[in-house]
Amino acid sequence: MRRIHVIGIGAGDPGYVTAQAVDALNDVDVFFASDKGAVKDDLVSLRREICERFIREPGYRFVELPDPKRSKEAPDGAAYRQVVADWHAARAELWAQALRDELADDGVGAFLAWGDPSLYDSTLRILDMVADRVEFTYDVIPGITAIQALTARHRIPLNDVGAPVLITTGRRLREEGLSGTAVVMLDGDCAFLDCPPTTEIWWGAYLGTPDELLLAGTVADVGERIAAVRAEARNRHGWIMDIYLLRS
Amino acid sequence: MRRIHVIGIGAGDPGYVTAQAVDALNDVDVFFASDKGAVKDDLVSLRREICERFIREPGYRFVELPDPKRSKEAPDGAAYRQVVADWHAARAELWAQALRDELADDGVGAFLAWGDPSLYDSTLRILDMVADRVEFTYDVIPGITAIQALTARHRIPLNDVGAPVLITTGRRLREEGLSGTAVVMLDGDCAFLDCPPTTEIWWGAYLGTPDELLLAGTVADVGERIAAVRAEARNRHGWIMDIYLLRS
Ligand SMILES: C[S@@+](CC[C@H](N)C(=O)[O-])C[C@H]1O[C@@H](n2cnc3c(N)ncnc32)[C@H](O)[C@@H]1O
Ligand SMILES: C[S@@+](CC[C@H](N)C(=O)[O-])C[C@H]1O[C@@H](n2cnc3c(N)ncnc32)[C@H](O)[C@@H]1O
Repeated sequence: MRRIHVIGIGAGDPGYVTAQAVDALNDVDVFFASDKGAVKDDLVSLRREICERFIREPGYRFVELPDPKRSKEAPDGAAYRQVVADWHAARAELWAQALRDELADDGVGAFLAWGDPSLYDSTLRILDMVADRVEFTYDVIPGITAIQALTARHRIPLNDVGAPVLITTGRRLREEGLSGTAVVMLDGDCAFLDCPPTTEIWWGAYLGTPDELLLAGTVADVGERIAAVRAEARNRHGWIMDIYLLRS
Repeated sequence: MRRIHVIGIGAGDPGYVTAQAVDALNDVDVFFASDKGAVKDDLVSLRREICERFIREPGYRFVELPDPKRSKEAPDGAAYRQVVADWHAARAELWAQALRDELADDGVGAFLAWGDPSLYDSTLRILDMVADRVEFTYDVIPGITAIQALTARHRIPLNDVGAPVLITTGRRLREEGLSGTAVVMLDGDCAFLDCPPTTEIWWGAYLGTPDELLLAGTVADVGERIAAVRAEARNRHGWIMDIYLLRS
């Protein structure tokens, strides 16, 4: 029976890799990768660095997964979910083919998920659909998320004492506003600029990497500076990953 | 100058320890520990297991921090926060004393935080107050939280596509009800039983340990079973740590 590890490699620093992930990495014959776009080169090289650093007997290989075309528009609500579902189904088809072609019947494959595989990542959803097409067993290895990287680098608690925290996206923050504490991910647009000026923000980009950027203060004091730093960094790198914690 | 590492050791499995945490562990002269109550023996032995497994040249020692008395009642709202703040201040005083007494001027100390130091953990808050009393520098090493352990062991995504997730407590769930997806921690009381019967629940206790328990289904189908399994396990161990994900 084919086996698959879905391995969280942590969100940036190779030092975020866990002992459990190291064991799983050392068990793998074929790494399936499906990065794309501008981000691609940097992420691929980070993945390779992790494999080189932690795998003791390199007998593994990388297989690049072909990526179905995804429509550029981002429609709202139900329509958006349908677009995503169709795209997941198309990927599942390609992944199933790759598992059949590239992995021996008793081979061990892996998908390396950035951060933790459960957080805004489609690997587990797609793999669920692949399971209808090829037989395999799989396990999931947790990883350090960008949320933990953010709070660790700012050395702050995530929650107020006994209080809840919302994990959300830039789009949702814009639609729903802020109440209490929220961590915002996947924000292409500095949605924090719409928050009340007294809102506190802890912002981080390229966390855990040599390019890490950290800024904190009230939205009134540092909001515009974050927007400027972000635009400049994004320009320079060709891509950006950033995340922030807000407290009203 | 004294240095302190606040090290997230992951929420259960010694394999959750990261490479960065291993480096930090190997840097430490004195581990300060402040466990208490029924949980104590099991957690202390897990901590010692981690030190034994990952520290290459054991020259470290453990120092037990004395714990101020904490009032047993849990008043609501502002009064609760005041009780917690007073108790943090009392601990800060004791910790400052221990740093002065037990750590050389250029010594390296550490606090091992269960899971990640930022999530429902008071170490960073207390250390902030200790910093007013003794001079030291410190860094924070992120760890795998019980949330990541839960989703990994159930092999599920945390969020629906593009949707938010609330991290909350049993008390808050009871007060505020459920909307969308929530992860509930620190619930002594099976607050999920008050959720609509069609609510989906993924429950886990002692995650990542040999005593791990996992149950999933709708609240109607598995709610009572979780409550019974939980009561029995808690009885047997003398303590329990459990967490669950709810989706309406
Ligand atoms: C598709 S999600 C994947 C999240 C990942 N699974 C995790 O556990 O962090 C990508 C988003 O995560 C955040 N992110 C991931 N890595 C980051 C990093 N090193 N620095 C800042 N933000 C990061 C950003 O908000 C980015 O838009
Ligand atoms: C004081 S909080 C500390 C959380 C920790 N800092 C973390 O990152 O997971 C303790 C709560 O975490 C959850 N928890 C921690 N470890 C757990 C485990 N191994 N299994 C189940 N729940 C756990 C439970 O909800 C418990 O009430």
